Amino acid sequence: MADVMPSTRHFTITPLSGGITAPTGFRAAAVHCGIKATAGALDLAVLAVDTFASMAALFTTNLAQAAPVLVSKRHLEVNGGVGCAIVVNSGCANACTGSNGLANAARMADETALDLGCQPEQVLVASTGVIGVGLQMDRLVPGIHEACSSLAHGNAGDAARAIMTTDPFPKEHAVRVETSRGSFAVGGMAKGSGMIEPNMATMLGFLTTDARVTPALLQRALRESARDTFNAITVDGECSTNDSLFAMASGTSGIVIDEERYPALLEGFLAASRELALGIVRGGEGATKLIAVTVRRARTGDDARQVARTIANSPLVKTAVHGADPNWGRIVAAAGRSGVVFDIGRLTVHLGGILLFENGLPHDEAAPKAAEILKGDTVDIEVHLGAGDAAATIWGCDLSAEYVRINGEYRT
Amino acid sequence: MADVMPSTRHFTITPLSGGITAPTGFRAAAVHCGIKATAGALDLAVLAVDTFASMAALFTTNLAQAAPVLVSKRHLEVNGGVGCAIVVNSGCANACTGSNGLANAARMADETALDLGCQPEQVLVASTGVIGVGLQMDRLVPGIHEACSSLAHGNAGDAARAIMTTDPFPKEHAVRVETSRGSFAVGGMAKGSGMIEPNMATMLGFLTTDARVTPALLQRALRESARDTFNAITVDGECSTNDSLFAMASGTSGIVIDEERYPALLEGFLAASRELALGIVRGGEGATKLIAVTVRRARTGDDARQVARTIANSPLVKTAVHGADPNWGRIVAAAGRSGVVFDIGRLTVHLGGILLFENGLPHDEAAPKAAEILKGDTVDIEVHLGAGDAAATIWGCDLSAEYVRINGEYRT
Repeated sequence: MADVMPSTRHFTITPLSGGITAPTGFRAAAVHCGIKATAGALDLAVLAVDTFASMAALFTTNLAQAAPVLVSKRHLEVNGGVGCAIVVNSGCANACTGSNGLANAARMADETALDLGCQPEQVLVASTGVIGVGLQMDRLVPGIHEACSSLAHGNAGDAARAIMTTDPFPKEHAVRVETSRGSFAVGGMAKGSGMIEPNMATMLGFLTTDARVTPALLQRALRESARDTFNAITVDGECSTNDSLFAMASGTSGIVIDEERYPALLEGFLAASRELALGIVRGGEGATKLIAVTVRRARTGDDARQVARTIANSPLVKTAVHGADPNWGRIVAAAGRSGVVFDIGRLTVHLGGILLFENGLPHDEAAPKAAEILKGDTVDIEVHLGAGDAAATIWGCDLSAEYVRINGEYRT
Repeated sequence: MADVMPSTRHFTITPLSGGITAPTGFRAAAVHCGIKATAGALDLAVLAVDTFASMAALFTTNLAQAAPVLVSKRHLEVNGGVGCAIVVNSGCANACTGSNGLANAARMADETALDLGCQPEQVLVASTGVIGVGLQMDRLVPGIHEACSSLAHGNAGDAARAIMTTDPFPKEHAVRVETSRGSFAVGGMAKGSGMIEPNMATMLGFLTTDARVTPALLQRALRESARDTFNAITVDGECSTNDSLFAMASGTSGIVIDEERYPALLEGFLAASRELALGIVRGGEGATKLIAVTVRRARTGDDARQVARTIANSPLVKTAVHGADPNWGRIVAAAGRSGVVFDIGRLTVHLGGILLFENGLPHDEAAPKAAEILKGDTVDIEVHLGAGDAAATIWGCDLSAEYVRINGEYRT
């Protein structure tokens, strides 16, 4: 994170309640329209701005892109980064559904725009759930109308629940950013919870702010904050067809974000996104422990990220952490196969702050102490490459038998 | 495999008993020297040639290379590809053991050479087991002398058992290659069983032949056969500090392998290696099913291998197969994130011979039939990219709760 922190801060950040509608100018609604089989389970949310908002988005890098991703990309091209709402359903991903799927995703935007009095292209679309199944439009369309007629400032919590699939808990967070010339808010919600990494895997994330930002600067803040938050987490190295991260800026706080105040917006986005991203990892399928892998003294930030990601994704490291086994050998082996070149004789590994491997040799006498620390629900792995000054952190989780159970039974 | 099969075969291949000592000119011995705690558990093997043999080897690409790997590489440089024996222990990897470890690995060769009457550099060394622990030389050295004094043609089975760690069964195989001008044999043994892929992961493999081959041609046959066998398998995407694959050619059959007869040697190596490699996957930690992922109609063989490997390593695909869930969506998503560019609208997926996805759209009516086939212990996944004529197969296994149990408890 260090490389994006400004050296001098002219602002303070404090937590705020209210989630996605904590910033002024936004309303949300969530309903059960019947895509999810469970009676009453929220499965449709609309997030709308009172007037118009700058919009930005990042999408999955998977070649197999779901219909809502393709439609949202096209709408952003047409609307020039100015829109009025996002409509999102859970329970069905509308992925691998061909031209029918594209028509259905476009219709989700159409129906929302109709109710809100804007252009269809000013509405973005997201879906999450089972792949290869068509949307039940006879249920979804009435649901959209019901949601659009119940938009309110207080519905953020319901919206955060409506986007969940196998998530064990909803994820929302908001912060207030105080600058010398006034304050603005950043709100957010997200869902996981398998297929996380790299670059947006079945993850949906939504950020709102009442700062006034151009679409270009909003896109930059989204990209730069995602690098060290949503794109710095991994549950199982998978990457899905539907991953999307959206940002909307209402401008209603009156605070204008220019180049000078950009660091304040970025820090606000980082603060909200970090909390949401860590929530996704903590709620990872079958996860019992959060693993923070920090690589320091790397030649470049990319090198640090690559080594950290390889360690965080290693099944052998993940199972060792699950079993509270201070197995530095697996960490060394994962670093060694990461593709990054370094001198193994200068490699150092700390587990939970305990030095276990130094300059190519183990400190096994410290293993029992490290094993104790590994019993906690957060595990810090720190690796020094001895090759430079760059650093990066990747957050992952342990691999449990529960992950196998969830994913062996999810669809059938 | 298709791209290495000669169009016209001038030879036949038949299975042979006798494992690593099936080819003439080789003797083996295995003893319990005490590196493994269990009383009587074989943990040291010596494989020797009656006179001298051409030698070749492939080693782990991990930056963290164990002492036996470093010593064997040096010996191969010095001996010019002519040697007399390989000494190997299980139970201790002699990895991350610094200069002491290097001295111990070199001494394993010294003691073996002393008994066999050759130069230390004519002996190669391999170790497998726990990382970061020193070899108990007071047990190992007497073990080497005991083994060297009991070398015999009939000990191949014991040698295959002596190299096992968490392997559930020993892996050995031999074939006879009949050519128009006489026959030769190829024998082999290998151990897995976690950390398999890519490019030699805690795997030890040994091939012998009584054909007469130059070290250069032997190295080529080893490299080319490994590409589609030992390097085409994956258990968990890990790659270890000790992986080594060795080949020795005694020449005692009198059959000289020149460029013209090279295809016969390659096919012999492929036949023996394929059997050993599939044994490693079948014996993968916690594996209950063998998964053969074949990618066809790719632009290049490298593209085909990359897509197949991504699918075979996907935790979501592996858990779906474990649960007998015909989840083609996870296969499509894994192909889409593999980094290989193709048109998703031309993608086709067969599971167990059943067409489940064609040109971007699902055939879900076939899912129940595919689910039945998935209950077997071998699962064929076939993906067509619609981009060219190249093909490749990667073998993997399912991911079970047992994998988590084994790897969460291995070291402690």
